[in-house]
Amino acid sequence: MTLQDELLANNARYAAEFSSGMLRLRPLRQIAILTCMDSRYTAQGVLGLQLGDSHVIRNAGGRASDDAIRSLVLSATALGTRRCVVVHHTDCGLLGVTNEELQDRVATLSGARPDIDFLPFDDVAASVAEDVAALRACPYFPPDYEVIGFVYEVTTGVLRPVEA
Amino acid sequence: MTLQDELLANNARYAAEFSSGMLRLRPLRQIAILTCMDSRYTAQGVLGLQLGDSHVIRNAGGRASDDAIRSLVLSATALGTRRCVVVHHTDCGLLGVTNEELQDRVATLSGARPDIDFLPFDDVAASVAEDVAALRACPYFPPDYEVIGFVYEVTTGVLRPVEA
Repeated sequence: MTLQDELLANNARYAAEFSSGMLRLRPLRQIAILTCMDSRYTAQGVLGLQLGDSHVIRNAGGRASDDAIRSLVLSATALGTRRCVVVHHTDCGLLGVTNEELQDRVATLSGARPDIDFLPFDDVAASVAEDVAALRACPYFPPDYEVIGFVYEVTTGVLRPVEA
Repeated sequence: MTLQDELLANNARYAAEFSSGMLRLRPLRQIAILTCMDSRYTAQGVLGLQLGDSHVIRNAGGRASDDAIRSLVLSATALGTRRCVVVHHTDCGLLGVTNEELQDRVATLSGARPDIDFLPFDDVAASVAEDVAALRACPYFPPDYEVIGFVYEVTTGVLRPVEA
């Protein structure tokens, strides 16, 4: 069975029980979450939010990259969100590695060496504080835009606030 | 009650029932999903995947932006994923708008006009095909890396394959 066939079979079961077709484009709670791509949690689960409540932006690390800012600014401007929640997590693949190490591994596996800043970090609470500060300093959000940050512990399920 | 207090109270309930602390950093199914930040679905739900199975990258539109490529290349190289599933959806906030319109709205709300390409599109199946092709052409993935694409219908829950 191909991956496409498997996912379509899974989706047929999902669609047969589907009940959220009345939800609208604009997030009900005016929240946008920025978090990591990590496989071990959903943003909504960790924060206790429901489908329809919040946008979810995920990338390696949950970093406030240019593309995360593109998404968050669109979310605020066109779709009405007014609060951003930044969540990084323990045991992240970007923790304690360097760009040079990562670029070497890409070159070994693919044969091409990328000029990519992977946005690694050495301290997860510090990376949250840095990204919260970057978003608060971004001039493209409405004046009342709020940004808060947390560290999520993947082994316990516990969220810890980060003061930034 | 502040948003921080509310989310911490929600998380205390989540952590009290937490049972996935044994999951590991590397996704079990070697899958990375690239999809939109839309509030109305989770990537795992739509595709029938479990916690621990797949990375989840989400941005406005689910586009193969430079930052999505940063995340996907890290996912493949450092964390072992070998299949990417691109999912865009109907009723997307980026569908049928222009950068100029979006930049105008940001300027009106924030007072600053951004020089941001928001990556809007006019046809959701075409945007999936374009992003699948872009990822297949990216030189930084391992030789056996597979990319497939779907459109998700937010009103029915149904996933439709896109041949690219």
